[in-house]
Amino acid sequence: MAVTAPREPKQDRSRATRQRLLESTIECLAASGWSATTVAVVAEHAGVSRGAAQHHFPTREDLITAALDHMFDTRMSWAREEAESVPDDANRTEWVVLRLVDWFSGPLFKAALHVWTAAAADETLKQRIVPLEAKFGREAHRTAVAALGVDDADPVTHRLVQATLDLARGLGLADVLTDDAQRRHQIATQWAATLDTALRPR
Amino acid sequence: MAVTAPREPKQDRSRATRQRLLESTIECLAASGWSATTVAVVAEHAGVSRGAAQHHFPTREDLITAALDHMFDTRMSWAREEAESVPDDANRTEWVVLRLVDWFSGPLFKAALHVWTAAAADETLKQRIVPLEAKFGREAHRTAVAALGVDDADPVTHRLVQATLDLARGLGLADVLTDDAQRRHQIATQWAATLDTALRPR
Repeated sequence: MAVTAPREPKQDRSRATRQRLLESTIECLAASGWSATTVAVVAEHAGVSRGAAQHHFPTREDLITAALDHMFDTRMSWAREEAESVPDDANRTEWVVLRLVDWFSGPLFKAALHVWTAAAADETLKQRIVPLEAKFGREAHRTAVAALGVDDADPVTHRLVQATLDLARGLGLADVLTDDAQRRHQIATQWAATLDTALRPR
Repeated sequence: MAVTAPREPKQDRSRATRQRLLESTIECLAASGWSATTVAVVAEHAGVSRGAAQHHFPTREDLITAALDHMFDTRMSWAREEAESVPDDANRTEWVVLRLVDWFSGPLFKAALHVWTAAAADETLKQRIVPLEAKFGREAHRTAVAALGVDDADPVTHRLVQATLDLARGLGLADVLTDDAQRRHQIATQWAATLDTALRPR
């Protein structure tokens, strides 16, 4: 009964520590911004020793890019699971647009915004963030296309899906200083109706 | 001939100094971000002594909010002048959408983005920025409505104009780390066509 290899629990602990650090990074970034989110602050927030945190992530840049990448992948997996329950009826476009807009006003977007903005004025950070941004853009587009069930090979459809992601990004930005949920819902619902008409097979 | 009051040139110099400080603030913010944009840095960039800069703007918050407010007002005046030459034909919607999208990818938007993001993690700054953001939103909306020549009392029209501004904001954000001009032009042109159909009198 007690013959499990001692390595397993240690690896599990290490994985759990890593996971807590990644989640804490997003929470700290979203709440306090780039400058305040140091490895020491994140370690304390996660209840992990600074040494253990630095063992996993030697620099702040390592920690922050790993956190954004991991949390984005997790969010996209949820999105793909959610998309399996997408209604295949007249409400499909609205269902997808409202969900897209929700993602872009959550803590992960707010965390990313702080990092993107810091990277705009920091060439070294920018080199690390640009490929991440490209990956996020590609995967968010692919997920949106699958959820909408449209043909991305059609150039008009491709651009309208892109526009929807750009709108969601703009609405996310409008939510950073004040709670914009009510206005956002109205805009997203209107956009969904206009998009649905425009996407209808011509 | 030489009886002009000595006060006038001094006031002119003071106004010119103030103007240079405001313009330099936007340039510094757009290029180097919030933390790097101190009164001392802006004064040096503007070729003004630090004492003179502090005479006009006692704190960094004073300088930065005055700069955003003044530059936004200037930009809106240009926009209203530009709007007088808006083509009153089939190209009107595209003309307006392309210009809106241009404003949101210029240095003023990039400067504002750094300040908005800093304000998200700084309650004192946020108190000063929130009314400014509300004013910018209202005036940009009013200017867009006038340029499009549409009836903002119609709720669908109102929301579609709002959506266009949110899309422009999202496209502006997508341009912060990499030059996104080509993709942006495609998205803006496509949205203009979709918007034009949706705005046509029902």
